[in-house]
Amino acid sequence: MGRRTEAPPISWLMKLALDHPRLISLAAGFTDTESLPAREARELLNELLGSRKGARAALQYGSTAGDPQLRQLTAERLRELDAAASGAKSLRCPGAKASYSPDRTVITNGSQQLLYLVTECLCDSGDIVLVEDPTYFVFLSIAQSHGLRCRGVRLEEDGIDIEHLEQTLESLKRRGEMKRVKMLYLVSYHQNPTSITTSFEKKALVLKLLKRFEPDAGHPIYLLEDAAYRELRFAGDDVPSALALPGVRERVVYAGTYSKPFATGARVGFGILPEPLLTVVLRVKANHDFGTSNLLQQLLSRALASCRYKNHLPELQRGYARKAAAMTDAMREYFPAGISWNKPRGGLYVWARLPRSVKSGVNSKLFQSAMKRDVLYVPGQLCYAADATRRRPDHEMRLSFGNATEADILKGITRLGTTLHGLL
Amino acid sequence: MGRRTEAPPISWLMKLALDHPRLISLAAGFTDTESLPAREARELLNELLGSRKGARAALQYGSTAGDPQLRQLTAERLRELDAAASGAKSLRCPGAKASYSPDRTVITNGSQQLLYLVTECLCDSGDIVLVEDPTYFVFLSIAQSHGLRCRGVRLEEDGIDIEHLEQTLESLKRRGEMKRVKMLYLVSYHQNPTSITTSFEKKALVLKLLKRFEPDAGHPIYLLEDAAYRELRFAGDDVPSALALPGVRERVVYAGTYSKPFATGARVGFGILPEPLLTVVLRVKANHDFGTSNLLQQLLSRALASCRYKNHLPELQRGYARKAAAMTDAMREYFPAGISWNKPRGGLYVWARLPRSVKSGVNSKLFQSAMKRDVLYVPGQLCYAADATRRRPDHEMRLSFGNATEADILKGITRLGTTLHGLL
Repeated sequence: MGRRTEAPPISWLMKLALDHPRLISLAAGFTDTESLPAREARELLNELLGSRKGARAALQYGSTAGDPQLRQLTAERLRELDAAASGAKSLRCPGAKASYSPDRTVITNGSQQLLYLVTECLCDSGDIVLVEDPTYFVFLSIAQSHGLRCRGVRLEEDGIDIEHLEQTLESLKRRGEMKRVKMLYLVSYHQNPTSITTSFEKKALVLKLLKRFEPDAGHPIYLLEDAAYRELRFAGDDVPSALALPGVRERVVYAGTYSKPFATGARVGFGILPEPLLTVVLRVKANHDFGTSNLLQQLLSRALASCRYKNHLPELQRGYARKAAAMTDAMREYFPAGISWNKPRGGLYVWARLPRSVKSGVNSKLFQSAMKRDVLYVPGQLCYAADATRRRPDHEMRLSFGNATEADILKGITRLGTTLHGLL
Repeated sequence: MGRRTEAPPISWLMKLALDHPRLISLAAGFTDTESLPAREARELLNELLGSRKGARAALQYGSTAGDPQLRQLTAERLRELDAAASGAKSLRCPGAKASYSPDRTVITNGSQQLLYLVTECLCDSGDIVLVEDPTYFVFLSIAQSHGLRCRGVRLEEDGIDIEHLEQTLESLKRRGEMKRVKMLYLVSYHQNPTSITTSFEKKALVLKLLKRFEPDAGHPIYLLEDAAYRELRFAGDDVPSALALPGVRERVVYAGTYSKPFATGARVGFGILPEPLLTVVLRVKANHDFGTSNLLQQLLSRALASCRYKNHLPELQRGYARKAAAMTDAMREYFPAGISWNKPRGGLYVWARLPRSVKSGVNSKLFQSAMKRDVLYVPGQLCYAADATRRRPDHEMRLSFGNATEADILKGITRLGTTLHGLL
């Protein structure tokens, strides 16, 4: 694998930022530093390490699947979120509760590790993974590293283009490649990078389609639902996860995280997944690290149990709403005509579409001029899979309002606006 | 990989322990719960989260390689340990200092993750890895999962049998298999499971031998030195790591950990390794998790900088010395004649050799009778690689004095003694 794995764009972008200390980075997917729960973390850790029993549990090894209480609280919380989002309707069907079982839950080093483990366990070199077009670029690095082929499925306002998904599957079937198709990866809430949220209806249609093509595949085709940004919603309604759909829990892998909505530096994520995949994921995680840090797990467990987690969310969401508005307001004021974007309702990103003639890639005039003005964005191109069936678009920018201050967002967008005015 | 990966013995042993709550486990490689630094961790975290700057750094994402200060302190500490162990002689040669550079250091989720990453990056299915016979059984699970073939090299009192290593390499050369040999994995301090420490001389001879066979391999053959138990030494002198040898740093990967000597539940480990391997390991770690928890890294960084780490060690080492003595004293008193073991000088294990006629495996009378008496040990067989060139020995036991209390050690050994008397 060492020979095959390419340098991931994330390392390269981080290095650019380090080499240019005065840079305003609208590239990093970091969270808002001011809103990190320093006081809460300190209180929780004092409670935890102040009790003899708590300290022992926190500072000793644990089990590979994770702390039982944290798995319980995690599964419960997800069930509550889905029940609230669906008006509890879909969760009333028999057996629905079983989808949210702590026995199906594993705690991981950020949700990133779950994405890695699931890919590692399910896929062999040459296999095909369906992804949104564009999608989370670190997932593309995982796929590249494992020698996988990605097929991009177009996006609409409410998620993946079902017709295009069907065409893609039909075309793979015609070429006799369905046996290589292992899963569809979906960043379903406030997607990275487009900020699009997939509707509940589309999740149902996606799973129905995948099921239809399973006989051609000869094995399960999983939906890997990456819900990393779900709790960073600051407008609109929540959407139930695919787990809330009846009769599909054997095909849904839900990846969630506490890094984005709470203690980013703790890097605690989780997965809810079906057998026999869960058993295999646990075997491989035992080889990776035989379990996530118990100190961090106990911290999150206490945060959830004490409501400090829940109480932290509204302030966090208000903060991101303010910063998102600061960014789109500045874009409206300083960007030239011909550039479009959707107003985010959550997450960390604004996805800006330039006229197709204006390139935004690393070697483009735009990127280079922006760098000269000390502004960094993520070139849209990096978010598109290497999919030979279409040209990789090169006229978009991912702009993050997560980590930069409001003042820097304004400065950064102004400078980017000046650059764009010069080019358009 | 999912289809190939077998259930690791570690999960199965943990399950046995969970299913038998009254069990005295002399199997777990857990550390001593009483000696965990609860007070120190609490003080350190209060200092850390009490300062605005500290809290921000601890609760935000970091870089994939790890916190610069922790890498610096880690590399420095290792240089000091090696200098002290070698009377600073070998470290005076020009360029020696460069071996201990923070630029060659990566922070990982326990040293386990480093073992995984290095194996993942270096080895393809069908490759050959040389291991000690017996060795750390979770490393064998990593190898199994990646479809690797292990060749076991016999152990002597002062480490690997150099003659047997040479014979093994010669035999691989004759069969034209040197191209598949990627590394030698050595648990060099108070080895898991035998408690043997490899001498400095043997490390030099090992590297010389590997170098001699490199032309046949056509690529570097690395020494992966796993020093997990180094700082749990309570008798005898420290031995310099292979990094202290002149001219070999391009072939040595050093895996260390802060889990065993300090905050086990924090799970912070590290690696020191050469280019181009380091670059590849960082790329793959970026895909695994893009960096170890900053909160944990800052905790360890402060523990090292404030000397709380250093000050914690003597007490810890005294505690393990006491428990090791309690175990071997009890063995001398309650075990029948014909069983032998070495007195450990560090680490967590006593390796007991029964007469060859007495089987110790999972299905043996001994194991089953011990389980009936609520005592669990690790069957020696699990620590031997699947190596077709020799029969897998089945008459040894790994007994851990790490986690059990002195009272339980005494009780466990007494019960095991009764069982053994019944069988011998």
